[in-house]
Amino acid sequence: MTLPDVAATELADPLAEAAPTMELLLRELDRRWPREAERLHRISRYALLPAGKLLRPLLLMESAEAVGGGGPAVVPAALSVEYLHVGSLVHDDVIDGDTMRRGRPSVVARYGTTDAIVTGDALMLGMFGVLTDGAEDTGPLTEDAGGPLTDDAGGLLTDDAGGLPPGRVLGAVRVFARAGVDLCRGQAMEGELRGDLGCGLDRYLTMSALKTGALFRAACRGGAILGGGSPAQQHALTSYAEHLGLAFQMHDDLLPYTSDSRTTGKSALSDIAAARPTFPLLLCHAMAGAPARARLEAALGGALPAADALRTVRELLETTGALTAARDRATAQADRAKSCLEPLPRSRATAVLAAVADLSVSRDR
Amino acid sequence: MTLPDVAATELADPLAEAAPTMELLLRELDRRWPREAERLHRISRYALLPAGKLLRPLLLMESAEAVGGGGPAVVPAALSVEYLHVGSLVHDDVIDGDTMRRGRPSVVARYGTTDAIVTGDALMLGMFGVLTDGAEDTGPLTEDAGGPLTDDAGGLLTDDAGGLPPGRVLGAVRVFARAGVDLCRGQAMEGELRGDLGCGLDRYLTMSALKTGALFRAACRGGAILGGGSPAQQHALTSYAEHLGLAFQMHDDLLPYTSDSRTTGKSALSDIAAARPTFPLLLCHAMAGAPARARLEAALGGALPAADALRTVRELLETTGALTAARDRATAQADRAKSCLEPLPRSRATAVLAAVADLSVSRDR
Repeated sequence: MTLPDVAATELADPLAEAAPTMELLLRELDRRWPREAERLHRISRYALLPAGKLLRPLLLMESAEAVGGGGPAVVPAALSVEYLHVGSLVHDDVIDGDTMRRGRPSVVARYGTTDAIVTGDALMLGMFGVLTDGAEDTGPLTEDAGGPLTDDAGGLLTDDAGGLPPGRVLGAVRVFARAGVDLCRGQAMEGELRGDLGCGLDRYLTMSALKTGALFRAACRGGAILGGGSPAQQHALTSYAEHLGLAFQMHDDLLPYTSDSRTTGKSALSDIAAARPTFPLLLCHAMAGAPARARLEAALGGALPAADALRTVRELLETTGALTAARDRATAQADRAKSCLEPLPRSRATAVLAAVADLSVSRDR
Repeated sequence: MTLPDVAATELADPLAEAAPTMELLLRELDRRWPREAERLHRISRYALLPAGKLLRPLLLMESAEAVGGGGPAVVPAALSVEYLHVGSLVHDDVIDGDTMRRGRPSVVARYGTTDAIVTGDALMLGMFGVLTDGAEDTGPLTEDAGGPLTDDAGGLLTDDAGGLPPGRVLGAVRVFARAGVDLCRGQAMEGELRGDLGCGLDRYLTMSALKTGALFRAACRGGAILGGGSPAQQHALTSYAEHLGLAFQMHDDLLPYTSDSRTTGKSALSDIAAARPTFPLLLCHAMAGAPARARLEAALGGALPAADALRTVRELLETTGALTAARDRATAQADRAKSCLEPLPRSRATAVLAAVADLSVSRDR
């Protein structure tokens, strides 16, 4: 994780302050997904480890702490948001036919379509079981451990003792389920928008809020609920997450034009080839005069050789001012995210959350 | 639904007694999935309606009532087990490339792979939101209805007022999540067993318990928990579900050999062509002498033309006695399921559950 400029926060290096949380999450992931488990769990381990940035679990842990909760009791919930995220990535790669993920073969490339669909399903479904692990004893529920149904259930179905009130955990279940459905709605909408540069910024922002924003929102709002935050605190962290999600997606869309593809792991050509209406392209389309707009549409319509199309798009992003405007708007969203934290008591956790907002628009991958 | 022989039960026609429950479920499904909703929900409606047998929701409703709960408060939970079931069927059809489901084009055939994967995901994830609808107010959770995330959330995310204690609902979340993961484990295992007639009955039974039994178990156990059943009652209904699941799967495997494919909607050749080690084939393999076993393996190994292979298999199922043995064992499982109901107070609900067990081995599709 690249360190951001953290001048706006109180701590010298707030993300370094997040290191113990990250270590706890990584240790728990490794412990819950043993290498010797049955096939489905070995594939799940492959999808989960080595871990990505663990940004969403970190957001959940810090949001819970920001309202006075947090710690080991919310670790199952933090991991569960990662399971949802990774499960959806596994399915994304099936849908897009992507063969690489985090620098190595994707699950679908390595294990095939059947195992990729089933593993994604298991991660998405199992996360709700993991989430309930944080709850205190919920009364007269026998465990019925006998029979084949409960053997080797792996990292999805541990039975840690937790101490959270059932009402809070149920609130998190509701938030995560809604986030999962929103994520799917965003994916369906993304498919509809493909190739439609005229779809407009509004629909793009709605799609981003659903597809990218949903899990940020679930992480922060879920953390606030589990940590026992007041309605006002839940609202503050939810708003923070929504602006963070937009900043993150806007910056992500910029990376192909501002960063080296060897760093991002993402070809600058892929968005153009897929005719994906990303944020800078939509801004460019809206800001360009008629001749420039016609050139942009030609470049994205497959009329030019790939290298020429990319050169044209880069040039138009500069000359229309769309690149600068996109950067400015991403930064404005990150700033709004930080301002949403103001009602919360200042703490190590809010400093980390502010630093994550800065990082969301300064990272190079 | 074909009416079974219900001599073993107290009521003249226990399944007719279930008619009001079925009507309630169908009415709720239709209400929750309006035709004019956004794309993802229209596809979900296509997957859900016209409804199948609604066997799993019925089991949940009757299990809850059998322990003194039930009624409108458990309808969201009953529908959610159907969403999980249908979501997994939608993915199954993607995996198997099946173009027909319930007598019309499958979701993947009609809408394509992307929409089928995303719709299955949305059904599986959304079910947990629906499940929480049955809970009584869970404390200071703001709803934050603003923003694009909550518009038109459709049948997956209603906010009915419910009156169930959060601890019970959380218990059901846990049971459903485990069932979902078990279902995935069964699907992965089914893939591993394909073509392996020597896999043995034990592995077949484990696979069936996971793939088919998991949702029966979730429905009955979930109903018992939500209805406020004692640990002994939860245990009785869980055992009932496990035997019912086995009876159901064993009978399902027999249908291609005992029923007309125009009735079952399932070609007698498909199991043979896919070299699927189904229950009668495994019994036949175990019961046959060496020459008959060699003929069976040849027929299933693709060595014969399809019609000859089917004729050979049918003959061997008769001469080895495997067909009769398979029928007997399915009936024995149904009888064991009924005997598990004995500790429960006799009621309309237990009569319906007993009738479902009879139906599981007498239906012709």
